[in-house]
Amino acid sequence: MKIITVNREFGSGGREVAKRLADELGFAYYDSEIINEIATHAELDTHYVERMLENGAPRNYVVTYSRTFHMPSAIDANMTRLYSVQNKVIKEIASRGDCVIVGRCSDVVLRDSDPFKIFVYADMESKIERCLGRMQEDEKLTIKELQKKIKQIDKGRADTHNIISDIRWGDKKGYDLCINTTRINIKDLIPYIAKYAENWFETREK
Amino acid sequence: MKIITVNREFGSGGREVAKRLADELGFAYYDSEIINEIATHAELDTHYVERMLENGAPRNYVVTYSRTFHMPSAIDANMTRLYSVQNKVIKEIASRGDCVIVGRCSDVVLRDSDPFKIFVYADMESKIERCLGRMQEDEKLTIKELQKKIKQIDKGRADTHNIISDIRWGDKKGYDLCINTTRINIKDLIPYIAKYAENWFETREK
Repeated sequence: MKIITVNREFGSGGREVAKRLADELGFAYYDSEIINEIATHAELDTHYVERMLENGAPRNYVVTYSRTFHMPSAIDANMTRLYSVQNKVIKEIASRGDCVIVGRCSDVVLRDSDPFKIFVYADMESKIERCLGRMQEDEKLTIKELQKKIKQIDKGRADTHNIISDIRWGDKKGYDLCINTTRINIKDLIPYIAKYAENWFETREK
Repeated sequence: MKIITVNREFGSGGREVAKRLADELGFAYYDSEIINEIATHAELDTHYVERMLENGAPRNYVVTYSRTFHMPSAIDANMTRLYSVQNKVIKEIASRGDCVIVGRCSDVVLRDSDPFKIFVYADMESKIERCLGRMQEDEKLTIKELQKKIKQIDKGRADTHNIISDIRWGDKKGYDLCINTTRINIKDLIPYIAKYAENWFETREK
């Protein structure tokens, strides 16, 4: 089984990198699908699962759990359960066939399957530009607010990752290839990363 | 002018990556040639220049400088002069045409030329294996000694780099692509990195 995991800084275009890689290689692509499956398995609301796994447990957050309400004291137990379900879902997804999986600590969860691990990052200026380009009309953020949002989301991703791994989120040691997307044309460059990944699997299989 | 800079952890195969990239792209390749040119310009001994620029100024090291001897107090002035000559030599080399330059802070010195900056790294186990493979019969080091040597050389490279740059040596932010060579076949994979670099320059030139 050939598995590619893509971790990324918010606004770096990591999702586009992952999608294009999957298309180029004919691999299945999993991103928000994972959250949906976790929510179904855990009988939790999709938005709640997303918020918990992306940003860690927020304070004073009332938990909607199987239509009953729990106060924050229940969050720790819920998080543990969520991580357990996440592990199960990601392993099940990976067993279906060659795939590209975005985020969700899949690099750590699937380490025994020897995935090709990519980290995508960019300069803050470039990330802000990318975010501005795809921002909806109704969510007008200032540059300063956007910068704060980017840092907050990345902190959430790092915190979630660092709970289950010795190697810190974004530390190049934990990845096979780290791609800086600052001012690059992702569409034009991804075919070469796909070729690299294809050959990486062949070399490792020897 | 298309310039590729390659920084690397000792034992990661960075030099092989750089040489193969240069061959693949038909670019000039500069590694120890730089040290020779610096030594000639500064009228210093090649080995001394190499030791100073790779490992920083060692304590109690007597400086052979234009056939007169200087005690360590002269080292700081000499280092400043060496960095200045290094800058000049690297810029002159880069102005000759498309090239791949290994180490010597060329990523920082040439930042105004917008080079494609690569960092090559690997797991300690993999670096030790690579070093053992190329070790001469007369320099038999134990695994522990080898590990110490690898760390020392990398510390020297980091110290030298961090004197002239805000971004720390090896921090992915300072590079366009970070390649983990652990268990990979460099020969088979470099052609795809060459293609990536070629296209990176085209994209950036638009």
